[in-house]
Amino acid sequence: MPQLVAGCAEAGVPAVGLWRGPVRAYGAEATARLVRSAGLAVSSLCRGGFFTAADPAGRAAALADNRAAIEEAATLGTGVLVLVSGGLPAGDRDLAGARERVADALAELTPYAAAHGVRLALEPLHPMYAADRCVVSTLAQALDLAERFPAERVGVVVDTYHLWWDDTVAGQLARAGATGRIAAFQLADWVTPLPEGVLLGRGPLGAGCVDLRWFRERVEAAGYRGPAEVEILNSGQWARDGAEVLAEAIRGYRRHVL
Amino acid sequence: MPQLVAGCAEAGVPAVGLWRGPVRAYGAEATARLVRSAGLAVSSLCRGGFFTAADPAGRAAALADNRAAIEEAATLGTGVLVLVSGGLPAGDRDLAGARERVADALAELTPYAAAHGVRLALEPLHPMYAADRCVVSTLAQALDLAERFPAERVGVVVDTYHLWWDDTVAGQLARAGATGRIAAFQLADWVTPLPEGVLLGRGPLGAGCVDLRWFRERVEAAGYRGPAEVEILNSGQWARDGAEVLAEAIRGYRRHVL
Repeated sequence: MPQLVAGCAEAGVPAVGLWRGPVRAYGAEATARLVRSAGLAVSSLCRGGFFTAADPAGRAAALADNRAAIEEAATLGTGVLVLVSGGLPAGDRDLAGARERVADALAELTPYAAAHGVRLALEPLHPMYAADRCVVSTLAQALDLAERFPAERVGVVVDTYHLWWDDTVAGQLARAGATGRIAAFQLADWVTPLPEGVLLGRGPLGAGCVDLRWFRERVEAAGYRGPAEVEILNSGQWARDGAEVLAEAIRGYRRHVL
Repeated sequence: MPQLVAGCAEAGVPAVGLWRGPVRAYGAEATARLVRSAGLAVSSLCRGGFFTAADPAGRAAALADNRAAIEEAATLGTGVLVLVSGGLPAGDRDLAGARERVADALAELTPYAAAHGVRLALEPLHPMYAADRCVVSTLAQALDLAERFPAERVGVVVDTYHLWWDDTVAGQLARAGATGRIAAFQLADWVTPLPEGVLLGRGPLGAGCVDLRWFRERVEAAGYRGPAEVEILNSGQWARDGAEVLAEAIRGYRRHVL
């Protein structure tokens, strides 16, 4: 955490999205002090969610964990909590039912989030994660869910890695903009072959086939003025020196996104 | 090929979908005689396609290969050639352009297919293949392309593995039925974790989270009366005894699809 914060501050990066694991390891209060003292903002906290358990105990545990995530976001001073909805419970084949449980969880959590000044940001994940990670697979689905709630309470995350393949995404980005729903904008490139488990194979900016600049222009045209987060889940990248990866991310952003 | 044909005939399976590789290895004419003598029909030939090369030489090679596939289909006595559209050429980020080249190729090939009594069956593949295998990712996209041509010339393939995650699929199946576009119906289940390269990880019927029976009922409600093909690309399954796998596929079909 200190290396990340120092690196961002030194490079002139004004804001950083944080993940709960490292935040908890370093301590939420300590992280908040560290980030603040470096003049850095926290753009979002990633992630809450995993709402799709069908049994009461699983459901209660998920809600408790999300209340904790909301508190952590508030401690960090970010107004955006990214939500990954969760996959299908074992043996369950009812995607529509699982998606409805996501809506139920949002209804439960929005008052608590509002009281903490936190907006819930529903992230559609690529359809290859629909079974085991996120039953919300398209921007249209995420907006269908988000629009059941006030825009200031529930937004959506636009992540190029998850949405690039969808030929309806231009229209859905315009819809998201018109209704003020874009809560976060995340960037990664699509590279193949995908690794086993398909979790840690995202590409550095410019390494793959996503028209990243097109996405930036579209979210800006849709009225989004918030930060762009470079989020590259990639075991190869993680094994490298953090300062080098940060420098490359900045170069990649300037060259392929701006 | 003889083992497959004998196994299907013995089990009372009336039709089988064949792949070009094994057909070519055994010989198209010899395969046709073998299948015919066993009283077996060929439900489809898989696959033509890979239409997305942008350079003239790559494009000409693809068209020539597809004409050969059409001839092979005619030799085998099947009226259905499954098409996998192809991915993005290296360095290309223009998905819409690649999809337009698919339409161009269909326009080129339909007269030749018609002359051979073969219907082109465009298969939408799961979005995880959009970069390297198939830029047509949803049933809606496949229908948008197919509907530029007469229904008897260009249809679509409904494959549960590729379409199960899509919350718009019920409406698109109805659309496909109303316009007489369902040319083939293929079955595999979705199991995780996905293997590296995500090609050979399809699940046996009932092993995963796809509501296979729902799909069968929907394609039947849409008016489809053709064969159902069990198509499980899975290296683990392929390493096993063919007769056992066939027997399991039949049991799985009776239990989870019928």
